[in-house]
Amino acid sequence: MAATPLHRHAKVVRMVVSTYQAASGAGAAAMEELLQQTHEVLDGKQPTCKIFKQQYAFNLFSHNAAVLSNGYNEEEMKLVKETRKIWNDMDVKVTATCIRVPVMRAHAESVNLQFEKPLDEDTARRILEGAAGVTVIDDRESNHFPTPLDVSNKDDVAVGRIRQDLSQDGNQGLDIFVCGDQIRKGAALNAIQIAEKLL
Amino acid sequence: MAATPLHRHAKVVRMVVSTYQAASGAGAAAMEELLQQTHEVLDGKQPTCKIFKQQYAFNLFSHNAAVLSNGYNEEEMKLVKETRKIWNDMDVKVTATCIRVPVMRAHAESVNLQFEKPLDEDTARRILEGAAGVTVIDDRESNHFPTPLDVSNKDDVAVGRIRQDLSQDGNQGLDIFVCGDQIRKGAALNAIQIAEKLL
Repeated sequence: MAATPLHRHAKVVRMVVSTYQAASGAGAAAMEELLQQTHEVLDGKQPTCKIFKQQYAFNLFSHNAAVLSNGYNEEEMKLVKETRKIWNDMDVKVTATCIRVPVMRAHAESVNLQFEKPLDEDTARRILEGAAGVTVIDDRESNHFPTPLDVSNKDDVAVGRIRQDLSQDGNQGLDIFVCGDQIRKGAALNAIQIAEKLL
Repeated sequence: MAATPLHRHAKVVRMVVSTYQAASGAGAAAMEELLQQTHEVLDGKQPTCKIFKQQYAFNLFSHNAAVLSNGYNEEEMKLVKETRKIWNDMDVKVTATCIRVPVMRAHAESVNLQFEKPLDEDTARRILEGAAGVTVIDDRESNHFPTPLDVSNKDDVAVGRIRQDLSQDGNQGLDIFVCGDQIRKGAALNAIQIAEKLL
């Protein structure tokens, strides 16, 4: 949602993604397990691990999807393959590290982008402000940027921390931070929006 | 701790870092605030925000350090500058996105590395297994990788998810995931170890 408008403008050639994924991505029972474990830890008890095989409360861990022979887990490879499919671009280079964090709902992503054409951060911000389904939250002054809570139960994907990547030359790199409610935009709402388009 | 042995072997030319930083990095009062907020949220109350100006419990947010005119916050620029200082290499390219996650203690980092010389993942794993102060936790079979809890109150930095970066050609890229107790290795223990060296 956030990278595509930028891709259309300057063509993404490489993307490095690190995720901060909520319990909700693993379903209602996983959200329940995080709640129960948090109660147990606060009460000084051993946390009950059913869905996840390690403590989730006040902890984080590499995504629970199966790890493949190349060292990537299935969630990470999905991110690589779906980006290529959605952009219809088999050449775009993507690497991802998917991590579960003890957040109840809505995923976050730290995304480093490398473009074919130059793209300065002000142009990128204008493009994102004009993009359907995207809300820009990028207030450096008051240190207000997207959080999972900001987007929980919201339809839009929130993007902020939009800045020129210091580690890339020639205005061809950007860093952004994105949050989205994957129950809505990732699943239910998306299905409705696709159905509406079809109708 | 984890990147330096690899840098010595194959020279890091660029590093993209996303952090998962614990409450402990902001001190004991911040850990107390996360605890109190978690109790309050579980009790259906409004969380008390003193040290952080937004909800921390079951949420995450861009690091609370001041944001500079280039869009990076001071924590991120510290990561850029200290890497150059420690490696005595003013040319190494680093970008970082620093995020606070609701973890009590020990920071985590997702690190994407680009090398000058080829470095395959098996060689990298051997180098890290032989590195002082580093513990490799990298069991793909059982999906066991470093977590903040694994390293809390430990001296070593734990590294895992060691894999060839699919998005870089010619064996010159690696992704790794690192956890370390920044109270010990980041501060107190480090001071002692430096003092011991001096003595």
